[in-house]
Amino acid sequence: MKNTEKTMEQVVNLCKGRGFVYPGSEIYGGLANSWDYGPLGVELKNNVKRAWWKKFVQESPCNVGLDAAILMNPEVWVASGHVSTFNDPLIDCKACKMRHRADKLIENWCAENARTDVNVEAMTQDELVAFIRDNGVTCPGCGKSDFTDIRKFNLMFKTHQGVTEDSSTEVYLRPETAQGIFVNFPAIQRTTRKKLPFGVCQVGKSFRNEITPGNFIFRIREFEQMELEFFCQPGTDLEWFSYWREFCHQWLLNLGIKDEDLRLRDHEPEELAFYSKATTDFEFLFPFGWGELWGVADRTDYDLKQHQEHSGKDLTYFDQEKNEHYIPYVIEPSLGADRVTLAFLVEAYDEEVVDAEKNDVRTVMRFHPALAPFKCAVLPLSKKLGEKALELRDALARDFMVDYDEAGSIGKRYRRQDEIGTPFCITVDFQTVGDDKTEADHCVTVRERDTMEQVRIPIDQVKAYIAERVKF
Amino acid sequence: MKNTEKTMEQVVNLCKGRGFVYPGSEIYGGLANSWDYGPLGVELKNNVKRAWWKKFVQESPCNVGLDAAILMNPEVWVASGHVSTFNDPLIDCKACKMRHRADKLIENWCAENARTDVNVEAMTQDELVAFIRDNGVTCPGCGKSDFTDIRKFNLMFKTHQGVTEDSSTEVYLRPETAQGIFVNFPAIQRTTRKKLPFGVCQVGKSFRNEITPGNFIFRIREFEQMELEFFCQPGTDLEWFSYWREFCHQWLLNLGIKDEDLRLRDHEPEELAFYSKATTDFEFLFPFGWGELWGVADRTDYDLKQHQEHSGKDLTYFDQEKNEHYIPYVIEPSLGADRVTLAFLVEAYDEEVVDAEKNDVRTVMRFHPALAPFKCAVLPLSKKLGEKALELRDALARDFMVDYDEAGSIGKRYRRQDEIGTPFCITVDFQTVGDDKTEADHCVTVRERDTMEQVRIPIDQVKAYIAERVKF
Repeated sequence: MKNTEKTMEQVVNLCKGRGFVYPGSEIYGGLANSWDYGPLGVELKNNVKRAWWKKFVQESPCNVGLDAAILMNPEVWVASGHVSTFNDPLIDCKACKMRHRADKLIENWCAENARTDVNVEAMTQDELVAFIRDNGVTCPGCGKSDFTDIRKFNLMFKTHQGVTEDSSTEVYLRPETAQGIFVNFPAIQRTTRKKLPFGVCQVGKSFRNEITPGNFIFRIREFEQMELEFFCQPGTDLEWFSYWREFCHQWLLNLGIKDEDLRLRDHEPEELAFYSKATTDFEFLFPFGWGELWGVADRTDYDLKQHQEHSGKDLTYFDQEKNEHYIPYVIEPSLGADRVTLAFLVEAYDEEVVDAEKNDVRTVMRFHPALAPFKCAVLPLSKKLGEKALELRDALARDFMVDYDEAGSIGKRYRRQDEIGTPFCITVDFQTVGDDKTEADHCVTVRERDTMEQVRIPIDQVKAYIAERVKF
Repeated sequence: MKNTEKTMEQVVNLCKGRGFVYPGSEIYGGLANSWDYGPLGVELKNNVKRAWWKKFVQESPCNVGLDAAILMNPEVWVASGHVSTFNDPLIDCKACKMRHRADKLIENWCAENARTDVNVEAMTQDELVAFIRDNGVTCPGCGKSDFTDIRKFNLMFKTHQGVTEDSSTEVYLRPETAQGIFVNFPAIQRTTRKKLPFGVCQVGKSFRNEITPGNFIFRIREFEQMELEFFCQPGTDLEWFSYWREFCHQWLLNLGIKDEDLRLRDHEPEELAFYSKATTDFEFLFPFGWGELWGVADRTDYDLKQHQEHSGKDLTYFDQEKNEHYIPYVIEPSLGADRVTLAFLVEAYDEEVVDAEKNDVRTVMRFHPALAPFKCAVLPLSKKLGEKALELRDALARDFMVDYDEAGSIGKRYRRQDEIGTPFCITVDFQTVGDDKTEADHCVTVRERDTMEQVRIPIDQVKAYIAERVKF
């Protein structure tokens, strides 16, 4: 099944129905755009984060990890530019009072009018207003074209730390994990004694008060990022940019994302942020169209320089070989954990015709085994075999997540496991325990999710069999 | 070394110096009471969380996981009682303007005056004021006894979601992860088809605007919790309370916490919250004294009942065997991830006299191998052996976190690894590769951290040797 043949509704319904993702605070009517990961979702997302950490930290000879606090000194966000420029241009329709992002209004208008010559991102606030007025862009709510001026709306969530609520106690919920890495650069370098090039990886929550969140867990206000800041010698940065661009690409392919569903969009020189030498957006083909998944950028020495200037602290690196102090250049691959989890959900979703005549269709989540919430399910053929089956479940559960199901026919149980992406079903039968009046054969039947093929395996070899096949 | 012989300064200095924990936003002068986990700290804390998830979710036949959003519908906190009662009683000294928590002021006064008959937690606001006045409790800042009235200060961090900042958009940063489990109870039960008893586990950040945070990562405003809500049939609750009380106790002991450093304090009937049938506080002996680590409570049906009343939704469970609807009782073991990480750091810290005559003392972090940031370190005896050593590092890094160090004498390198708690050091020498003019013996020397004993092991058996010994 191609991604374009799938609908978001199919994926969302499966997620809600099987316990991958629930609407947040559902019994209270929800909270706009908040989602909770259920029992299967939390395993899937943890597996995604683990697969990232394994390749970006554990196996890497040069990267280390970090877990910085969400609440940081507000000066961090002054230095990074977020206080002054992390804004959305908001505009209100005077007629129907609907609120819009001026840039999105123009983007949609251009799409409808087949205008490909307009670069909205490069427009100033005045240019946005002028464009809307000159082209008579209308309100999608009421069709009129009568708007207020643009108001800048900062996307950072604010709160107060301490007992008084004034500007001196104002702090922000971080809008990205990256700055936590930059401000810790000197401490990390000092305590790990790492030499360039080396990288720092972080997984954690970030918050953006988006005006137009949506598409399930694609764009949410509270989201999780997996970011690497890779510090290298200036001049080697474009080489490392290519290295990490390819490394990220391979990570996705190795976890089952199809190349046909990926688009690596290199930014044109005029599209690049002023401090960036190269940027590539990884886009994935969601049912609602191409959406950004991973941004890989050569950010030069911009961030560390800003922090050095603003904090007055020395953030240079001392290069012993060159006997020289300099500020390293940085390559930043930045990935949204929720977004890539959605990509894995979409990519895995399949409806397969098992028997056309009987109109027998199975829904199967074709996750990479390393990502599947359960690595296997133990299914006793009869409730009488429960003791042996539970013994096997307990032994396997020492090593990985295992489901156990004794309700309904084996066929139905296989389908339930297909639907949640369990790569292996293990059936314990009367022969396994010798209850069929023969000698016990001490074997179980292992059925593979995608091929539906079955093999007979000695029970004491099952753990090794599964372990070998769920590696990443 | 006993915990009472250790100082917080020793532990904090090691944490800062070796990259376990850094002060948050340090280059900007910090942010009060915020801490960042460095390269070693993030591995340690992740291992703690993994060890909890393994025993409470993966191996459990009845528990499942959840990852709910930090931002929830504010009605959740009205129902839970946090909006009305999650307050600290603040009082200001009129003379020196110092701000205090009235209850802590009285507690400290009682300790100084050997008064053991006062139950501060049971006092009303008026009683607190009267006690301070009647006993002439003085300000620790200036010694005067002239205070303002008590002001209730709610400990929840507030922020606004959406583009307007008024009460309709006000949301809280969750002060605990537990409520995310309660409000999802019906969705989880429905989608997993679990029967009672079953539990739901969650790991995640919570936020409390504490007035008197402190003691390093013991009490912080932004902290991480590991909570289980175990739902069971009313009447079986005290049995399950004992079960989980013992389970939690074993978890700590199995990970190396000494029983002599633990105190299980059962609440007296008059000390129990009005909805609780039984509560035990696990206290750990920190260098600053006994501190609460884990709370295990029988919360009856209080929380689900509150949410049922407040939301108007049916939160009962249908018991098929009894053919009856009822609200389950709940056992809640609630553990702070940062706090227990600190306990593991304190417990692991040791200074061992290796040779008294030479005044040779080594600092060694005696972590349980499953918690140690690195499972092993590969040390080439000479830089000439780098190729073979790196090959071994790469092979081992496929399975666990491995350090690599080629700087300085082997003795110094062993000590560096001791200081960060690496359980095994693997030395690659000239015999390993046959560069000592003999046949290569294909063996490495493995040195164990605690005993400092060394064994010679074939290189192709090293991975299995380590894997076997770092299990939990």
